[in-house]
Amino acid sequence: MSLLTRFEAAARERLPQAHYDYFAGGAGDESTVAENEAAFGRLRLAPRVLSGAPPDPAVTLLGCRASMPLLIAPTAFHRLAHPDGELATARAAAAEETVMVVSMASTTPVEALADTGADLWFQLYVQPDMAFTERIVARAEKAGCRALVVTADSPVFGARPRDLHNDFHSLPEGLACENLREGDVVRPIEFSPEISWARLDRLREVTDMPLVVKGVTHPADARLAAGHGAALIMVSNHGGRQLDRTAAAIDLLPAVVDALVGAVPVTVDGGIRRGTDVVTALALGAQAVLLGRPVLWGLAAAGEAGVREVLAWFRAEIELATALVGGPLDPSVVRPC
Amino acid sequence: MSLLTRFEAAARERLPQAHYDYFAGGAGDESTVAENEAAFGRLRLAPRVLSGAPPDPAVTLLGCRASMPLLIAPTAFHRLAHPDGELATARAAAAEETVMVVSMASTTPVEALADTGADLWFQLYVQPDMAFTERIVARAEKAGCRALVVTADSPVFGARPRDLHNDFHSLPEGLACENLREGDVVRPIEFSPEISWARLDRLREVTDMPLVVKGVTHPADARLAAGHGAALIMVSNHGGRQLDRTAAAIDLLPAVVDALVGAVPVTVDGGIRRGTDVVTALALGAQAVLLGRPVLWGLAAAGEAGVREVLAWFRAEIELATALVGGPLDPSVVRPC
Amino acid sequence: MSLLTRFEAAARERLPQAHYDYFAGGAGDESTVAENEAAFGRLRLAPRVLSGAPPDPAVTLLGCRASMPLLIAPTAFHRLAHPDGELATARAAAAEETVMVVSMASTTPVEALADTGADLWFQLYVQPDMAFTERIVARAEKAGCRALVVTADSPVFGARPRDLHNDFHSLPEGLACENLREGDVVRPIEFSPEISWARLDRLREVTDMPLVVKGVTHPADARLAAGHGAALIMVSNHGGRQLDRTAAAIDLLPAVVDALVGAVPVTVDGGIRRGTDVVTALALGAQAVLLGRPVLWGLAAAGEAGVREVLAWFRAEIELATALVGGPLDPSVVRPC
Amino acid sequence: MSLLTRFEAAARERLPQAHYDYFAGGAGDESTVAENEAAFGRLRLAPRVLSGAPPDPAVTLLGCRASMPLLIAPTAFHRLAHPDGELATARAAAAEETVMVVSMASTTPVEALADTGADLWFQLYVQPDMAFTERIVARAEKAGCRALVVTADSPVFGARPRDLHNDFHSLPEGLACENLREGDVVRPIEFSPEISWARLDRLREVTDMPLVVKGVTHPADARLAAGHGAALIMVSNHGGRQLDRTAAAIDLLPAVVDALVGAVPVTVDGGIRRGTDVVTALALGAQAVLLGRPVLWGLAAAGEAGVREVLAWFRAEIELATALVGGPLDPSVVRPC
Repeated sequence: MSLLTRFEAAARERLPQAHYDYFAGGAGDESTVAENEAAFGRLRLAPRVLSGAPPDPAVTLLGCRASMPLLIAPTAFHRLAHPDGELATARAAAAEETVMVVSMASTTPVEALADTGADLWFQLYVQPDMAFTERIVARAEKAGCRALVVTADSPVFGARPRDLHNDFHSLPEGLACENLREGDVVRPIEFSPEISWARLDRLREVTDMPLVVKGVTHPADARLAAGHGAALIMVSNHGGRQLDRTAAAIDLLPAVVDALVGAVPVTVDGGIRRGTDVVTALALGAQAVLLGRPVLWGLAAAGEAGVREVLAWFRAEIELATALVGGPLDPSVVRPC
Repeated sequence: MSLLTRFEAAARERLPQAHYDYFAGGAGDESTVAENEAAFGRLRLAPRVLSGAPPDPAVTLLGCRASMPLLIAPTAFHRLAHPDGELATARAAAAEETVMVVSMASTTPVEALADTGADLWFQLYVQPDMAFTERIVARAEKAGCRALVVTADSPVFGARPRDLHNDFHSLPEGLACENLREGDVVRPIEFSPEISWARLDRLREVTDMPLVVKGVTHPADARLAAGHGAALIMVSNHGGRQLDRTAAAIDLLPAVVDALVGAVPVTVDGGIRRGTDVVTALALGAQAVLLGRPVLWGLAAAGEAGVREVLAWFRAEIELATALVGGPLDPSVVRPC
Repeated sequence: MSLLTRFEAAARERLPQAHYDYFAGGAGDESTVAENEAAFGRLRLAPRVLSGAPPDPAVTLLGCRASMPLLIAPTAFHRLAHPDGELATARAAAAEETVMVVSMASTTPVEALADTGADLWFQLYVQPDMAFTERIVARAEKAGCRALVVTADSPVFGARPRDLHNDFHSLPEGLACENLREGDVVRPIEFSPEISWARLDRLREVTDMPLVVKGVTHPADARLAAGHGAALIMVSNHGGRQLDRTAAAIDLLPAVVDALVGAVPVTVDGGIRRGTDVVTALALGAQAVLLGRPVLWGLAAAGEAGVREVLAWFRAEIELATALVGGPLDPSVVRPC
Repeated sequence: MSLLTRFEAAARERLPQAHYDYFAGGAGDESTVAENEAAFGRLRLAPRVLSGAPPDPAVTLLGCRASMPLLIAPTAFHRLAHPDGELATARAAAAEETVMVVSMASTTPVEALADTGADLWFQLYVQPDMAFTERIVARAEKAGCRALVVTADSPVFGARPRDLHNDFHSLPEGLACENLREGDVVRPIEFSPEISWARLDRLREVTDMPLVVKGVTHPADARLAAGHGAALIMVSNHGGRQLDRTAAAIDLLPAVVDALVGAVPVTVDGGIRRGTDVVTALALGAQAVLLGRPVLWGLAAAGEAGVREVLAWFRAEIELATALVGGPLDPSVVRPC
């Protein structure tokens, strides 16, 4: 039983079913949740040998140095997983030297997270009220966030049967989306069915943070994002939580990379569970990966220490895989099963 | 458990085994019944993002407006599923604003269905007695049917082991194929092994209804149908009820669409169980899909209300999938697993 | 449960385990036995419609008319399956009007089978003693056999774990390979590791029967066989009984057909269990198929009547599939899953 | 149950769990261990027929004649499997006339193995201390080893969960890596993360033994190895023990063979369990295969006699498969499932 399996089991045991399910579940029949992991199993490696000492795994993205090519994906409601919530996650990110992408739906205000010294990027669901949206962005920028990660795959909310079945639709007393608080008022997160590239252009004007487009799956959108000034593109299917039947994230990566011909850096998230998954993503052209659920299992199991343990375990996995896959890392080291 | 699963379970519970099996079963080893659904699972989506407000899902086909790109497929013997039979189905079609394709083997006369105000198309098995066939067509036209859907995949009757096993070969006392009634006489439906394109040409001469060819699976036949004046082509393997081992309907669609280069609109039916299935079909070039068994499960479970619930559930599924897949919808948003 | 399944179950029940296993089993891990059937399941059909009355399924091969494109494959030791042995099989072949390929390892002499009036072809394992081989051939020709089917895939005997496990290596008292009897002596069948095309050339000189090469799997050998005067080529992996890991027979057919560009007719055997299997083989270029184990199950279950029932069941299956697949039958009606 | 299955079962029963697991296990999730065997099952054969008497299976590689194209792969710690250890294996190799590749981690000194008369090649993990490495090489050469097999796939040690779980990290009292002994001191085997082609060049200078590079999986490295003077290249993923997710060895072979265009002979190891596996490898361009775990199961089950039984069983399997696949053996006799 690997560390991740043990932590997920611990999380399942500790959390109320509805909260565990909120983190673990996905849209529809959860086929995309399963596919994200399964797709890595269908990609096999042809390692290089005798290529000398492995390179330092550290990467610098949008001016932020991460000690390894693995960032913390934005996930909501960390205080459902552990009383220390996002604060624990941010401290772990700082200690393990990687970037935390703060969810707009954080149950801890971004300013408190910034105080941990972690490099933060801020994830945004564009709100129908653009003035409100801009106030949130300004607040994140003021707090010191180094990039604005605009979630593009959520014009509406994905249908998640587990949440429906558990009747999970609101946070327990005392928890709130603190990044949406204005004085005593916390407005609910809304989705913008009409969201389009024009909104992205508007955001580019109102912030100095580099813009990241998260949720790109189609090469044509990658080119559009580059044309609209995206500084980084995140290939993602939202961990299978938005549209079931979406292809596995890693299967979507190569066409996006090809479309961009190096103009814009790319990350991928969804189904990363092994160091070889990370190295596969790098070989296929990603600069880094983002990690979602495993961070939450570490958080639920042991708070900040748990998140650190997950990150350290991944660092060791990445170092081992990097050494054994050798280099140069390019698509030729990956082949279908 | 999704709505469709619950309704099918209810139907299985309420109906005599032989009647449930008649609806649920298929030809041979029922591999095509299974393939129709499984094939959708092998097609994965690469959604577009930031493409703005989703379009109205309504479509107009052969002059009939449907509030969504999902029509009711012709299926026989609705009064086996529910005492209200086809009348309930037609009322649901009218209420939910979609087209009902009336089966020639309806246990309710087409005139009664027309009275519901639903837009009706009439499905025809060409009978060996052409004069009789023409009388049926004339009757459907007079009743107000807006299209004649000629089933082309049934020169003989498919072998269905469940019906054989259940010894199901006739309707219970009091039920009959009312569209074949002439006075007191209801002739049995026959199949025409010698049926050919010439019969289609003859039908085109005797009716003003646009002709639809149902059961096309091969691109060469799509071109032939277009050449013989078909106004719409239905890609279908008859829900796996005629020839086991036929490919999944959705797998057959692209070659047919390619062969027609837009000259004639195309629908597909077989295995549609999710909004993403519908959007996949549209992306691959269909104008709409047809829904068979799920309508029967709704009918069996709750009569008109059940059919309405099924249609409304699909509308919500389609709207969600349409919003999340974004656009433009073209084959590039679909990829093999 | 289909007829074939019932008959196989009956055979399993009636026959001693070692004899059932001899018929049912195959070489090595029996993966090729399984593949022969599984491969048909991976091929899907795209039927043609409105193509008019289906053609007569009868075929004429090497001057022999068969009422359907399905011949009886050569299989050994029919008296292990039923006391009437090959006599029952031959009578069934005559009654159902198809060709029986008599095994050299028949437990009934070929002359007795010829008396049934069935059209017989004679299967030959070339013996190391060429003079003996030629006497066998002359005897078959004199008995009225219409073709000489040279098994090319057996330079040595395949290793069959079931026979080894059952210690099955000889016929019970009273049974013998009657076609190898010379007076009171019945020599054992031997294999010729050195068998080559030269032996085929020699056989062509000593008989007027047309030569059939059975066991071709590679297109280059199909061309060689044609060059050496083969009048018909049988694509076969010996029902998975010689070399485990050989590809499924139906998967090997297309390349052989392509290599021959129509110069020589081709049959295929291995895994035929449905009428659609037969139609698939015809669409991919075979003139006919051969049926092995199902004949034995019919024989074991009910003697001549059982074989007739199997043949009649296949005729009905073939007629149904022929009508529903329509035409013209060419490779475009078959597609991978 | 085949001989190999029985011997593995016997080994599992006789050995302490930790030792059995050390031999049986692999890296990570052991998906590559499984893939090595599974990949052969996905390759199907199209045998040639009537190609005459099969050739002698003996091969000569680097001046060493082996009676069949199957060598003994280097595996560590044979005295964990049986008290006679590598001595039994070497005697079996000599008796069955094949090459034994001696592991650097042998629990018997190479000189003692040389005394058996077996043709030995010596496997080397390049040690960080190059002087020490060169002393080991000189000793192997002096003992009469006929080739130096440099393991290239192990810059670091693969993570093997079973060993971790069993806390297996050292040899029992009385056992040691005898090839690393210098007087009373046995230094531990170390890995060289910085190992590169320069080390190979250095080794070429200090020994007259031909150099073999073991662990090549990528065609570019095959070309590099040839350019650096490798006399033979071993395609290998270390039996799935170094990097989980590496492709199956047999799937990696064709690209390596293509890259070398015959300049350097190639072997493959990993997952060889049948004579058809060997013939498949030869058809895809390997000169021979190496056998790892099955040798250990024979050794554990019955010492020298067990290893001989395994080798003899493989010889029979290879002869049978060679006869039945016929020839010429080239990639056209292998096809994907």
